[in-house]
Amino acid sequence: MTQPSPLASLGELRALIASLPGGDEAAAEAAAARETLLTKPAGALGRLEELSVWLARWQGRHPPRVDRPRVAVFAGNHGVAARGVSAYPPAVTAQMVQNFIAGGAAINQLCKAVDADLRVYEMALEHPTRDFTEGPALSDEECARAAAYGMMAVESGVDLLCLGEMGIANTTSAAALCHALYGDTAADWVGPGTGAEGATLARKVEAVVAGVARNRAAMTDPFEILRCVGGHELAAIAGAVLAARLAHVPVVLDGYASTAAAAIIHAARPDALDHCIVAHCSAEPGHARLLKRLGKRPVLDLGMRLGEGSGAALAVGILRAAVACHTGMATFEEARVSGREA
Amino acid sequence: MTQPSPLASLGELRALIASLPGGDEAAAEAAAARETLLTKPAGALGRLEELSVWLARWQGRHPPRVDRPRVAVFAGNHGVAARGVSAYPPAVTAQMVQNFIAGGAAINQLCKAVDADLRVYEMALEHPTRDFTEGPALSDEECARAAAYGMMAVESGVDLLCLGEMGIANTTSAAALCHALYGDTAADWVGPGTGAEGATLARKVEAVVAGVARNRAAMTDPFEILRCVGGHELAAIAGAVLAARLAHVPVVLDGYASTAAAAIIHAARPDALDHCIVAHCSAEPGHARLLKRLGKRPVLDLGMRLGEGSGAALAVGILRAAVACHTGMATFEEARVSGREA
Repeated sequence: MTQPSPLASLGELRALIASLPGGDEAAAEAAAARETLLTKPAGALGRLEELSVWLARWQGRHPPRVDRPRVAVFAGNHGVAARGVSAYPPAVTAQMVQNFIAGGAAINQLCKAVDADLRVYEMALEHPTRDFTEGPALSDEECARAAAYGMMAVESGVDLLCLGEMGIANTTSAAALCHALYGDTAADWVGPGTGAEGATLARKVEAVVAGVARNRAAMTDPFEILRCVGGHELAAIAGAVLAARLAHVPVVLDGYASTAAAAIIHAARPDALDHCIVAHCSAEPGHARLLKRLGKRPVLDLGMRLGEGSGAALAVGILRAAVACHTGMATFEEARVSGREA
Repeated sequence: MTQPSPLASLGELRALIASLPGGDEAAAEAAAARETLLTKPAGALGRLEELSVWLARWQGRHPPRVDRPRVAVFAGNHGVAARGVSAYPPAVTAQMVQNFIAGGAAINQLCKAVDADLRVYEMALEHPTRDFTEGPALSDEECARAAAYGMMAVESGVDLLCLGEMGIANTTSAAALCHALYGDTAADWVGPGTGAEGATLARKVEAVVAGVARNRAAMTDPFEILRCVGGHELAAIAGAVLAARLAHVPVVLDGYASTAAAAIIHAARPDALDHCIVAHCSAEPGHARLLKRLGKRPVLDLGMRLGEGSGAALAVGILRAAVACHTGMATFEEARVSGREA
């Protein structure tokens, strides 16, 4: 697997988009063919069979494996948090990073439960993005650097990459990304996040309206949208999605913020997320709306809305199970089980 | 945990229904209280939080644990299979039991993936039930013995019980159970099962219509329905559900056949399945209809329709993750993370 070189500008990210490899159809066909031989009625493992074929296609090998899954959690701070859009103070981003390091967060327990490697990427938490209601959140160089930082999560040997985030006010940023990309109303894309309600929720909607209006002229393409109303951790996720594609590593997106970051890549090139699945449907209402736009069917729907890559880690267990069936089951011939007769 | 004594008649099963213990509300409250202290917004782990509370309530302890989950697969043969209602020949039941023993089936791989103990209970495969279109499938004693056999799956130390099945033609039997319990039309409850279509599917509907009509007079209560149109493995599941309740072991039901067997217990006493969750929504169309009748929301929805306890085994991974978060996460106080301010 190759390591993309650091990016100095968003122009290089745009250029990468043009050079993405496709899937390995031979590996996918080999996986699909094997599924028909295993001791079960055709299709009886449902989504598990699809996931095995998807892994084979995007790992570019048959059989697929999930031996070294990584959960990458990018943490960033947002200037717009100062507008009182979250139920929690901005200091919580850094406090939660310490909690990740100490092993006390949900994602620590979930990574242990599915035996996934957890990496936490702290992104200059003492330097939040600019408040996007006052101008672009990031400069071109800042956004490109953040994306390049995200690319580092794709290290040699990693065979599945889960992308999560932590950042107080980043569902405000996610809503702004979606509103800028897809229109609808700001309120359609804004939800409680960590639990905003009442006046806080109203300020969140106002911030999204103001941020998209303030940056409208500058948002001439998806990457400019990412720069103007995104954030460090969201740019990192967009970069990681691209780096994973280049390195033949399938990606598991997590919840609303993670998927909104990936939506930038989708808007730039619709087939650029074909190597990504969405782990779960978040309880954050904008997520279901976003999944429709992306044409993505989530693997799980457990009413979760935590971020941190928590839903993605759970989906690793499902992917492992899919691969275990695909590679470990006997064929009808091996097991001497009769085939269908009617 | 206590071991119920063998049953000589269905009358004893009826008597057991009256003596079921309730849940441990103190344990449930302790679990719910802990969830509010952990480093996440209240409710952000969604269904995982509910599952932790449910496990505490029905294990009768806090914290709950999933250290020794068991997947019990009951295999039985059905006289109605002779009517050509399945895509596969009846010999496949015994062949698949050999496949379970040899480790080649899906459930073997899934149990390994979630580290669950797999037990296969072969139920006199050379003696299928009577074809229920010609009279009751089982005698009172046969049905009671099968239920008692199922109870043996609840052994000391098991802290979670997954109930699965294997039996050619048992979705025909499951459909007959549901049609007898709930009415609607036979076609509402009949689906492809392992892949019945065309004339096979038509014969399946006819068999359900004929079986319920032929046994109508005898089906005076839910246990008589189980006896008349059920089967060995389905009676075993009904027995296991009751034994688990008595022994404070929460239960994970699998797909259509497993849930239909448990529906007998629900029909006898509606709160008797409160210690059971349904692992997934099967692609077999009757399952969603049945879940509505039972008021059960499945944990997963992956388009699976294999049986064998396969969906239940996958749900073990979700339950383990719930417990890992519940017991392993730091509290806001421990991690010195600020609480909500808005």
